[in-house]
Amino acid sequence: MPLDIHAIYRIRSNARLITERARTIAVEQSVEMPLEAIDDPFVNSEIVGRVLDIKDISTKDSGGGVFEVRIALATATIGSDAGQLLNMLFGNTSIHDDVMLHDVELPCEFVRAFEGPRHGIDSLRRRVGAQRRALTSSALKPQGLPAHALAALAIALARGGIDYVKDDHGLADQAYSPFAARIEAIQTALRRHGSLTHYVPSLSGDLDSMRQQIAAARNVGIDTVMVAPMIAGLSNVHRLVREHPAIAFLAHPSLAGSRIAPPLLFGKIFRMLGADAIVFPNYGGRFGYSPETCRALARAALADWHGLRVSVPVPAGGMSTDRVREMLDFYGTDIMLLIGGGLLSAREQLTEATAAFVEAVKAYPYG
Amino acid sequence: MPLDIHAIYRIRSNARLITERARTIAVEQSVEMPLEAIDDPFVNSEIVGRVLDIKDISTKDSGGGVFEVRIALATATIGSDAGQLLNMLFGNTSIHDDVMLHDVELPCEFVRAFEGPRHGIDSLRRRVGAQRRALTSSALKPQGLPAHALAALAIALARGGIDYVKDDHGLADQAYSPFAARIEAIQTALRRHGSLTHYVPSLSGDLDSMRQQIAAARNVGIDTVMVAPMIAGLSNVHRLVREHPAIAFLAHPSLAGSRIAPPLLFGKIFRMLGADAIVFPNYGGRFGYSPETCRALARAALADWHGLRVSVPVPAGGMSTDRVREMLDFYGTDIMLLIGGGLLSAREQLTEATAAFVEAVKAYPYG
Repeated sequence: MPLDIHAIYRIRSNARLITERARTIAVEQSVEMPLEAIDDPFVNSEIVGRVLDIKDISTKDSGGGVFEVRIALATATIGSDAGQLLNMLFGNTSIHDDVMLHDVELPCEFVRAFEGPRHGIDSLRRRVGAQRRALTSSALKPQGLPAHALAALAIALARGGIDYVKDDHGLADQAYSPFAARIEAIQTALRRHGSLTHYVPSLSGDLDSMRQQIAAARNVGIDTVMVAPMIAGLSNVHRLVREHPAIAFLAHPSLAGSRIAPPLLFGKIFRMLGADAIVFPNYGGRFGYSPETCRALARAALADWHGLRVSVPVPAGGMSTDRVREMLDFYGTDIMLLIGGGLLSAREQLTEATAAFVEAVKAYPYG
Repeated sequence: MPLDIHAIYRIRSNARLITERARTIAVEQSVEMPLEAIDDPFVNSEIVGRVLDIKDISTKDSGGGVFEVRIALATATIGSDAGQLLNMLFGNTSIHDDVMLHDVELPCEFVRAFEGPRHGIDSLRRRVGAQRRALTSSALKPQGLPAHALAALAIALARGGIDYVKDDHGLADQAYSPFAARIEAIQTALRRHGSLTHYVPSLSGDLDSMRQQIAAARNVGIDTVMVAPMIAGLSNVHRLVREHPAIAFLAHPSLAGSRIAPPLLFGKIFRMLGADAIVFPNYGGRFGYSPETCRALARAALADWHGLRVSVPVPAGGMSTDRVREMLDFYGTDIMLLIGGGLLSAREQLTEATAAFVEAVKAYPYG
């Protein structure tokens, strides 16, 4: 079966037009030209996308017709390039604002060829001396502070016993806090402090810049980095993961607002690339994801899936210590909790606030 | 004035909440933490985003409140990295589905540092022996054909006198048409034919793959390539442009469906990166851009803007020869028209159909 991908789109359309809309997407995402002008039998049988199913999923709330359309596409058009995967699943169709790429079913060998996360949750726990519990993390900010001030924050968080401290995703290679000076200052401070807290710098720029940043980070003993795949380009992230098997990668959702369903984009595609952990906007914070979306995302990232290691879900964005129990009940305990601003607001009591967060996570009845 | 960027967002909101929404975006896109926890004077005065203006732009048709919010941000947070530009303008805010990044005003030196297109319309005309007229182009497809069959199509198009023949953006490095074999076959065929028709292969993969593809293309005498910035990553495209000043770059809109207004994304940001020409979905074709969006996009790409060369607009997507006159009336003549499927549908008459298209473009009263 050469049309071995099933892409599932959700389309707002009236019922009269949906058959034609579905057929149009199947063509757009495969050969992108009128079928009557194609006479090559290989192309017709093994490349042209095919509509397999159209389901009316309209509800009273959806305010008009919504259809779920299943389309078969060929992995032959993709090879093993991550950027080309998105190109063929949703490249031109992304421009239609009434179509969402809802999910994708991919052949096992295709998924396995991407290899996925190199570390998984056990390794992320081992690095910080944790056993079965959930992991804790926070962020260094605000943007604009010099390296030594960010290092002081890292130490205050480390004193509170945090597992991972990541750069705010806005930190790049700014004049007031150049990448090299920042990682040196923070990593040196943490090493002197002697804690297990891991610092996770944020990569930016083109593939070469990111490679240089990883090399600089490794030089000072850092083994975990963050990258925003939708900004860096998926193929480049995949390349970085392959080139640096000892490094763990956190994926950040910057610029990931799109018509690709978050459970698919984060839980499957970023996982295929090799994201060991995935930061995403938690429900009830300052972003609009629903509990259902968050649960589906975390489930996808943690599900048994063609033998890939899991990506650790990292719900974030307006979190606080008093939600720790609720979140562990909701997501389960194979998770990393991230509180950024909520801790930094404690200012002089940053260490105590961090300790309370860490304690709340440790006190959860892991059973 | 350190807050030297004006970012303009359009937000669906009710009037009661808009002040707070605007303030939240200003914080999200700068320091991303509670302001009351920031006491660094540099950060407070030169980094924290500031709401400058909120305008109610609701209309009867907008079905609820729509506001245009102008926020001042600092180029200091961006440096000169293209990915970081999008990160700071819209990274996390892209996740809110009721916010659009509508436009950006950037300081002159900041824009000039990106350098923009290296060639511009005169160079694109000169390469194909055109004077003042609009340029013509078509696409090689369908996906799935072997290299020699695509080369045969290129020759048929060249016989019709087309200026530029680009790869379908789905063509990558597939087993049935590997990049190296494809460019060799097509370029050899065109050289033998002796026409001025320029072949424009599509780049894919990570930065290194794209570099190798450009090197291979140059080796066979190709001087124009296509790349999809939203898939490749903006920083990587910018890097390719800087590394290859002799190559002209066409930008493709794959995966560009987003809440970034097309005139901004294509007409300003892709232009800053160095896109010599910009393929975008024409109104009245198979995508939903309005005439107003298309006109604004083309105007932005062609406007006098901080001394950058223009990006040549390439409206495409369901075009046909009988629209040539309408389009040149609408966009003006500093443009490249692209007809893909509409020509290929002519099959055995491909050369004749192409010649009719080319003739229609040449016959336009350029005045």
